[in-house]
Amino acid sequence: MTDRSPATTVGQAGESALIDRIRSRTGAAAPWIAIGIGDDAAAIVPDRNRHIVVTTDSLIEDVHFRRAWTAPRAIGHKALAVNLSDLAAMGATPRACLLSLALPASFPLDDFDELIDGLTSLAARTGAPLAGGNLTRSPGPVVVDVTAIGSAHPRRILTRRGGRPGDLLFVSGRVGGAAAGLAMLETVERNALETVERNALGTAGRRDALTPAERGCLERLETPEPRLRMGHAAAFSRAVTACIDLSDGLADAVRQLAEASGTGAELRAGSLPIDDGAIQWAQRSGGDALSSTLSGGEDYELLFAVSPRRRRSFLGAMRRCPDVPVSHIGELTRPGEPCLVNGDERTPLPRGFRHF
Amino acid sequence: MTDRSPATTVGQAGESALIDRIRSRTGAAAPWIAIGIGDDAAAIVPDRNRHIVVTTDSLIEDVHFRRAWTAPRAIGHKALAVNLSDLAAMGATPRACLLSLALPASFPLDDFDELIDGLTSLAARTGAPLAGGNLTRSPGPVVVDVTAIGSAHPRRILTRRGGRPGDLLFVSGRVGGAAAGLAMLETVERNALETVERNALGTAGRRDALTPAERGCLERLETPEPRLRMGHAAAFSRAVTACIDLSDGLADAVRQLAEASGTGAELRAGSLPIDDGAIQWAQRSGGDALSSTLSGGEDYELLFAVSPRRRRSFLGAMRRCPDVPVSHIGELTRPGEPCLVNGDERTPLPRGFRHF
Repeated sequence: MTDRSPATTVGQAGESALIDRIRSRTGAAAPWIAIGIGDDAAAIVPDRNRHIVVTTDSLIEDVHFRRAWTAPRAIGHKALAVNLSDLAAMGATPRACLLSLALPASFPLDDFDELIDGLTSLAARTGAPLAGGNLTRSPGPVVVDVTAIGSAHPRRILTRRGGRPGDLLFVSGRVGGAAAGLAMLETVERNALETVERNALGTAGRRDALTPAERGCLERLETPEPRLRMGHAAAFSRAVTACIDLSDGLADAVRQLAEASGTGAELRAGSLPIDDGAIQWAQRSGGDALSSTLSGGEDYELLFAVSPRRRRSFLGAMRRCPDVPVSHIGELTRPGEPCLVNGDERTPLPRGFRHF
Repeated sequence: MTDRSPATTVGQAGESALIDRIRSRTGAAAPWIAIGIGDDAAAIVPDRNRHIVVTTDSLIEDVHFRRAWTAPRAIGHKALAVNLSDLAAMGATPRACLLSLALPASFPLDDFDELIDGLTSLAARTGAPLAGGNLTRSPGPVVVDVTAIGSAHPRRILTRRGGRPGDLLFVSGRVGGAAAGLAMLETVERNALETVERNALGTAGRRDALTPAERGCLERLETPEPRLRMGHAAAFSRAVTACIDLSDGLADAVRQLAEASGTGAELRAGSLPIDDGAIQWAQRSGGDALSSTLSGGEDYELLFAVSPRRRRSFLGAMRRCPDVPVSHIGELTRPGEPCLVNGDERTPLPRGFRHF
């Protein structure tokens, strides 16, 4: 700090104060974290007879979120959640995470604390304590890059590539919520921004015009819950031949799983468990809930291919996660273009969001 | 691709083509990579009776490098090297790496290939194959975030915190080269840019005005070599009580190691193995090689605290890395401000670079 006034930005606080603030938010170290924050690297005691499962994913300002629209706590939560969702899709158990954070010097210190809180509370709750990382200055956007480290039984790891023609496709939870949430955010926040500009009012606040189910979609978008228990139960059910998470949309997940497995796929439109809030929002906004559910990403549910002979073991395993339903939404088929079946109509599945 | 002309930017190439390009550059999968690029996460077979050692660090355009000054290959190399240097400082053996890459859509495809080549060739050479990651669009700067995964013997992991008063401080290689290289780059490239602007010439090319030793400093800055064998040999020598890498400068490394160990420290100015190129450059540019060596970062050498009783085991272990010298540069002392001793003069060590 260059003066005695209390720091209000990360630039004023200084790097070591920021690291102390992170450390104070990580809670008690888990026994498997041999060396945590503060050394050149972290050391983790591996689980016996397990593979190490690792994944990395980033959230970038103005690509994945807008600071004006999303609370810092949600950004921190989501940056970890999207990584844990990848572990869930492999049937892995989280063990630790690392955070690589790039911030402009003007980033408010309160927002920093909230962002870290959002990440560390999800980390504590899922057994993946923050064990290290790095802080760097950004010349512009906030970049939150997280690595999640987990473990999985070598013969129980789920991949995208084991599906066979005839396997049943199941999806966890409800779909389409995040895409509807994003549409709401764009509508509500843009309206609010216009209001602010027109009336010079202080803050937004049109979210109260949403129904409770619609607000659920915003929650789904901003603080997705990784399906860790479900992925783990699926892996040990021995019924699941392939699995992927819905990061880039349901249609994209089906395409990716089918392609990796060398199969085709059919989704039944009538069987999709579309989020109630997404349906309400589509009715109010004149949108098409089915189409945005298929193409819209970020639901972070799991898509399972299940051997038809082992359907009962799968459903038995899923009963261990009673708060999240699973729905039978289609089948893998012989190789061919993945399709949506809607009554008598068959149409190719749309492609998912691509960064490039 | 939206037309038939060959893609020249990452935006034109498309995400799956980019992933294919990465995959074609990763070489044969190592036997310990159970699941590599292309699934939700990577799976690695752990080494028996070893801890997992993980670290993450990023290079950000206009903070860590300028695209106009540094070849893409060097950016890819360095993004991995800085992470491997952290593994080296823990005495760990690299096993895999992950790449989280954010690029503007206009990023040239040739540069993309080169950047990936720089990373994957170092990865192949150090036993840390690229096992996964993600690609995302950046609204501005190139962000190269790498996670390195290694393994270390639980009772041979080096940390910053085991040093004791009386321990000898050794540093690997030569120091000050990277700081001098940065100063050269700033001088040479700025001159070249002015020349380009004045004469509308095509490319720069004043690097040929540098002496061979000076060009060595540029290499040190742009493609540092992580001291992996040295870190490993040090860990197994049982002589090293603490270790850290020189990412933020020699003075900073000494301060961090002393602080983590609860000691003071003394560096002897006359014993520092300052890079010949840094000395030549200081003479030509009127700078102070000692001061820039202490404060300047990015040498990526290792600083060791060595128990004086075990000095010979340490030196014996270091003989296994004959191409890199080690120099005895000072001692840990009783708690107190870390100092530089220069003849009769004692001055506090400067502080290192801080992002915030």
